[in-house]
Amino acid sequence: MARSAFAEHGYDRATIRLIAGEADVDPALVHHYFGTKEDLFAAAVDIPFNPGEALQAIFAGGVEGAGEWLARLFFTIWEGEASRRAMLGQLRRALTAGAEPSPLAEFVTRAVLPRITPHLGGPDRELRAELAASQLLGLAILRYVVRMEPVASTPVERLIEQVAPRIQSYLAGSVDGRTATGASLA
Amino acid sequence: MARSAFAEHGYDRATIRLIAGEADVDPALVHHYFGTKEDLFAAAVDIPFNPGEALQAIFAGGVEGAGEWLARLFFTIWEGEASRRAMLGQLRRALTAGAEPSPLAEFVTRAVLPRITPHLGGPDRELRAELAASQLLGLAILRYVVRMEPVASTPVERLIEQVAPRIQSYLAGSVDGRTATGASLA
Repeated sequence: MARSAFAEHGYDRATIRLIAGEADVDPALVHHYFGTKEDLFAAAVDIPFNPGEALQAIFAGGVEGAGEWLARLFFTIWEGEASRRAMLGQLRRALTAGAEPSPLAEFVTRAVLPRITPHLGGPDRELRAELAASQLLGLAILRYVVRMEPVASTPVERLIEQVAPRIQSYLAGSVDGRTATGASLA
Repeated sequence: MARSAFAEHGYDRATIRLIAGEADVDPALVHHYFGTKEDLFAAAVDIPFNPGEALQAIFAGGVEGAGEWLARLFFTIWEGEASRRAMLGQLRRALTAGAEPSPLAEFVTRAVLPRITPHLGGPDRELRAELAASQLLGLAILRYVVRMEPVASTPVERLIEQVAPRIQSYLAGSVDGRTATGASLA
């Protein structure tokens, strides 16, 4: 039910109340079983954990090391068979959607990026968070959609070795050792 | 004619001979007017220059600065209205293709990446070239397909400022100032 509600109404407009109403159940019941709307979305696309909690844990100790943990979170989602299938479906939808934003794009915009940017220092942090996301998006497409070699069959740990430092450099606002002014954490 | 031949047969199998045959003209004529197969592909997707020549020029002076010039080449292609439209079409095709590789994926695999990797030093250079490409792919999708803000409306020069150093770090095999062993040029 939630999956079709997110698909039909988009992430923002698909409130717990609306989803419960369409299933003719009490909103409190949906809340009791699924928690927040983002939990419900994660369940609907078979993401096997709460991305909000995961991101909070990643940034709990500051921005240091966050690049690697984001890369690990990314592969946890994409290397699981059920969640990969669900993500592929959401991705294709996002890429073929017309003018209206797709549930996945809205989820990233409303529930993922706002949990990353507050932890970044320096200028252009929304932009840098999105560019980090664009690197992971491009990687997902080459590895799981286009299946281009050698990216498609390189072991996850070697990909993390390559990608994590570049994600980290977006997050920290550092370029080749230089750190952007103010790129520190409270 | 060439466009449909590439779409139907794929980049590898669509030889100049085959394309000329389908149009019932002499292969020498096609060669005379369009040059190499990659010129023909570039013309078919409205890429307003020869990517082979452009890449040769970019790496003529070595890998230094190549990240920025690749980013500029990327935006030259994507910011032009006709070539953007053509690339969007090729991209959608690549993303929805089934088991057979799309013309764009084959073009990147056969005609673009092999012109980049020989210029890179260090280990994993095929992988690093592809990961640099994956960063540009993800950027193209967020900016031109999903149109996510702020990436979608950030001026090109500010995007180049952010993206070029990360592309460069893939190409040079350097992470935060450290350069991978052997990451130098002949």
